[in-house]
Order: sequence, then structure tokens, then C-alpha cells
Amino acid sequence: MKIEDALNESEKVLTPKRYAHVERVTETALDLVKKYQGNEYEVGLAAALHDYAKDMEILLLKQWILDHHDLPKDLLDYHHELWHGPVGSKMIQSLFMIQNHDIINAVRYHTTGRIHMTKTEKIVFLADYIEPGRDFPAVYEAREIAKHSLDRACHYALENSIHFLMSKEQPVYPDTFFAYNHLTKQLS
Amino acid sequence: MKIEDALNESEKVLTPKRYAHVERVTETALDLVKKYQGNEYEVGLAAALHDYAKDMEILLLKQWILDHHDLPKDLLDYHHELWHGPVGSKMIQSLFMIQNHDIINAVRYHTTGRIHMTKTEKIVFLADYIEPGRDFPAVYEAREIAKHSLDRACHYALENSIHFLMSKEQPVYPDTFFAYNHLTKQLS
Repeated sequence: MKIEDALNESEKVLTPKRYAHVERVTETALDLVKKYQGNEYEVGLAAALHDYAKDMEILLLKQWILDHHDLPKDLLDYHHELWHGPVGSKMIQSLFMIQNHDIINAVRYHTTGRIHMTKTEKIVFLADYIEPGRDFPAVYEAREIAKHSLDRACHYALENSIHFLMSKEQPVYPDTFFAYNHLTKQLS
Repeated sequence: MKIEDALNESEKVLTPKRYAHVERVTETALDLVKKYQGNEYEVGLAAALHDYAKDMEILLLKQWILDHHDLPKDLLDYHHELWHGPVGSKMIQSLFMIQNHDIINAVRYHTTGRIHMTKTEKIVFLADYIEPGRDFPAVYEAREIAKHSLDRACHYALENSIHFLMSKEQPVYPDTFFAYNHLTKQLS
């Protein structure tokens, strides 16, 4: 599957506004690939497909989680915003025969992050956070840090996501927290 | 063992400054017992002994963690501030034959908190956070909330501990995070 084909597939299932976000994430991710010597094919494909399940009905997302034994059921105890990454990662395996684990995991963990992210996972996670359409207080600093360090920028994004969720009295999915701890120790 | 005896034992092994803190925590905890219909004996004993291991040498704390199979070794990957609670909980079992699990756990988890805290554990955790000698920005609001809700005050303390640790680029011990998530869901 080529990156353009992946973008076309996303365009078919997403609203125009969401698809424009996917295009910006893909472009941002490919810029980060150049800066950090990433894998252009893996990152491009994962970025182009990262929100593949995002416009699905919530009840359908839930059913996918219930039907796939290797998707953790505790996702259902957290905000449904977290469901489309894991479900999308299963869909792209089923529909497009994608078997590359870096691509699959970059889609799966692009919202939460996780411990021991690969470079491909980090780039997609960060690109989704800083793409030029984003506009929230922490994004400006995140873009600055992303010019110098992929790890520090991911760490900053994770930290701010946790601050944000706590300010909204929301629980934090454990993967996000473990990703924060892992990068904190690695960077100290 | 009476509460006064427990205080005397703590006085023997702590600096005068630390012992004064233990007295204030005990007094604060007993006030919270009255407000929230807690168990005076459990809370009083746990509060009086909560910092029993706090002035021990760091290397000795580490050795206790290594020597006790039921203390998690991942504590050693986190700040040594977190070690005295778990070690103290083992010491009070060994030295004073304390077998009441609520007392033991209130000492063990008084710094980190944990999921499914009992009322005794919550009271000791909160008293340690808000005792009148404490002076940091969040403590004033925590004291206000403690007048109305034990759960909300614990939740506020956990949330602020996580904010504080992240602002210092420190990892957060998983128990603290799980305690935050648990109370967040319970209170929502």
C-alpha cells in the first residue's frame, strides 16, 4: 500500500474536516521523519491511517473492542476518544492486510502513547499533537521542543495531556502515565 | 499498644522536628476521625507510627525493601522519599506485633496513596498532607475541601501531588496514579 492510497482510504471514511487533519498530520510526520531519520514508509502509512476509525459510531467502536480479544477491555472504562486508535489498528490489519507492527502500533497508540514507543510511534504521536491545525496553549512550546528533541517533545506532550485531563477531572489511561514515567526516567 | 505508646516509640527514633510533625499529623487525623466517623484506635496508631522509618539511613531502607519479598522492588526505581512508608509498615509489624491490616496499610501507603483506600488509610494520607505545619500552595484549598469531603480532599491531594511531581520532571509512582484514577471515577 502506498501513502497516497492510504490517504485515499482515509478520505473515503472521514469527514472533510477530519481528513484535512489527517493530511496535516501526515505532512508534519514526514517532516519529522527527515529531521529525526525516521522510516518514511512506516510513518507515512501510519500517519495517513491513524484516524481511520475516528468517525465510526461509538457503539460500533465499542463492539470492535469487545470482539477483539487482544484489545484491552479496560478501554471501555475511559473516554471514547481513546477507542479509535486501538480499533483503527485492527481495521487496517483486516482491510489492508497491514502486518508491520510499527505501523500497527503507531496507529494503536497515537492518542495515549505507551511505554517503549518506537521512533515511528513517537513521530506519529507527536505529529498528531503538533500539526499546524492544532491550537491550544501547550502546542506552541511543543512545536519549539520538536525542533530539537523528539523524546523531549513527546515527554512534554504526555505531561501536558495528563495536566489537561486532571484539570478536567478526567481519569488518565494507564498507557499515557507509563509513557510519561518511562520518558521521564530516560531523559533524567 | 496505646496511641501514647506509639508516639513515644516514634519519638525515640525521629528527630525532634520530625516528631513534632508526627504529633501534628496524629492530632489532625483524630480530628478527621471525629468529622468522618473513623476508627479512632486504627487512625491514631497509624498516624503516630506513619513516619517510623523516615529518619533511617537510605541504604538501610533499601536493604529492607530488598529483604522483604512482599515489598515491591520497583520502589527502588523511584525517589527514596517513597521508601519509608512501606518499610515502616514492615517495621511496626516486626517490632510492635501490629497485625491490623488497616493500620499496616495506612502506614504503608501514606505517601503514595493507592487504589481502594480504606477510610483509615484516607484519613492518615490526608492528615499527613494537610497538618498545620504544611505550607505549600495547594494545602490551603486541601484544608478547605477536607472540611466537607474526605474523598474530594484525598482526590485533590493526589491530583496536586501528580502536578507537583510532573512540574519537577519526576516520575509518579503507579499507586498514586491509580489512586487518582480510582477516586476520579468514584467522584464523577
